[in-house]
Amino acid sequence: MAIVAISVAPLGEGTSVSKYVAAAERVLREDGRVKFRLDPMFTTIQGDLGICLEVAQKMHEAVFAAGAKRVDTLIKIDDRRDKIVDMEDKIRSVEEKLRR
Amino acid sequence: MAIVAISVAPLGEGTSVSKYVAAAERVLREDGRVKFRLDPMFTTIQGDLGICLEVAQKMHEAVFAAGAKRVDTLIKIDDRRDKIVDMEDKIRSVEEKLRR
Amino acid sequence: MAIVAISVAPLGEGTSVSKYVAAAERVLREDGRVKFRLDPMFTTIQGDLGICLEVAQKMHEAVFAAGAKRVDTLIKIDDRRDKIVDMEDKIRSVEEKLRR
Amino acid sequence: MAIVAISVAPLGEGTSVSKYVAAAERVLREDGRVKFRLDPMFTTIQGDLGICLEVAQKMHEAVFAAGAKRVDTLIKIDDRRDKIVDMEDKIRSVEEKLRR
Repeated sequence: MAIVAISVAPLGEGTSVSKYVAAAERVLREDGRVKFRLDPMFTTIQGDLGICLEVAQKMHEAVFAAGAKRVDTLIKIDDRRDKIVDMEDKIRSVEEKLRR
Repeated sequence: MAIVAISVAPLGEGTSVSKYVAAAERVLREDGRVKFRLDPMFTTIQGDLGICLEVAQKMHEAVFAAGAKRVDTLIKIDDRRDKIVDMEDKIRSVEEKLRR
Repeated sequence: MAIVAISVAPLGEGTSVSKYVAAAERVLREDGRVKFRLDPMFTTIQGDLGICLEVAQKMHEAVFAAGAKRVDTLIKIDDRRDKIVDMEDKIRSVEEKLRR
Repeated sequence: MAIVAISVAPLGEGTSVSKYVAAAERVLREDGRVKFRLDPMFTTIQGDLGICLEVAQKMHEAVFAAGAKRVDTLIKIDDRRDKIVDMEDKIRSVEEKLRR
């Protein structure tokens, strides 16, 4: 299972882009196949890698559908196959080390 | 003021790297100059851009100090000068659009 | 048409990772559907976005097939639909501005 | 020594941004402290990490000086301290593996 951070940004549609990010978020709510959370700089999703990439592409397309003519998307994949890890486990694991 | 996402990763130190991420997090707690939050894929910080980059470099160095010999760091900067924006505002602004 | 930068990195397989990057490059040579070039920090590919993402996923899988147990992949997409742009045009366009 | 990929993008200044990228490139030519090359999706620089980050910040500021009000900058650092590596060596090393 992969944990994937996605950031979409329309170029040339003004400096306020939350409308476009919301269009991409709506895809997540409608698609329903991946766990997700909205962080300040990225949306983090989790699921089968092929499905995560399909969802990322749909989020990217949603920004065009909302009116953009150029879209920059950044996708960071963390894919671990020696262990099952949930996105919240990653935070917990660092916080435990910090308490020692 | 800039909002900056930072991810540090040691190469060649095994597949479990939370010890190294914790070393980078400790820098934030000790430095005290920037607001921060730990997300699953990135640490998000906020402050004067020059200070944010100093802090990012200290986080990167902390991974070497913890024993790594090669470190990959990713820094994504969102710097807006037409408006003062807090990292939590970015999330709120998208969530408001989603409720409409 | 999209221009896409891809970087793959195995975590926990030592500090020298060119063997794994070569496995990912081999995918490009065998797949044959996208234009590509190898830059120092990224491989840049160009083609239909859906195909680029399929190829990126195959590159990512090739690093696992080469023996990695955890793979970090970064994908940056520049997708412009108001104009057809080749990856070399992007460089030329900046260089022209620099000569002025 | 670090190898660093940098991408700058103004948000809200139209879909053609090569003028802004050229402003960032000019910084490299004038600063003179780091080796650099312009790739399609990133500018790759190489040098002492502290200097690379100073240069990256100057590139980012140059996009504001050219008129942008919001700038997104992505910085990817590859910092290896077990071996001296030049940016061209990274490419050569992968190409050698591909010939085998």
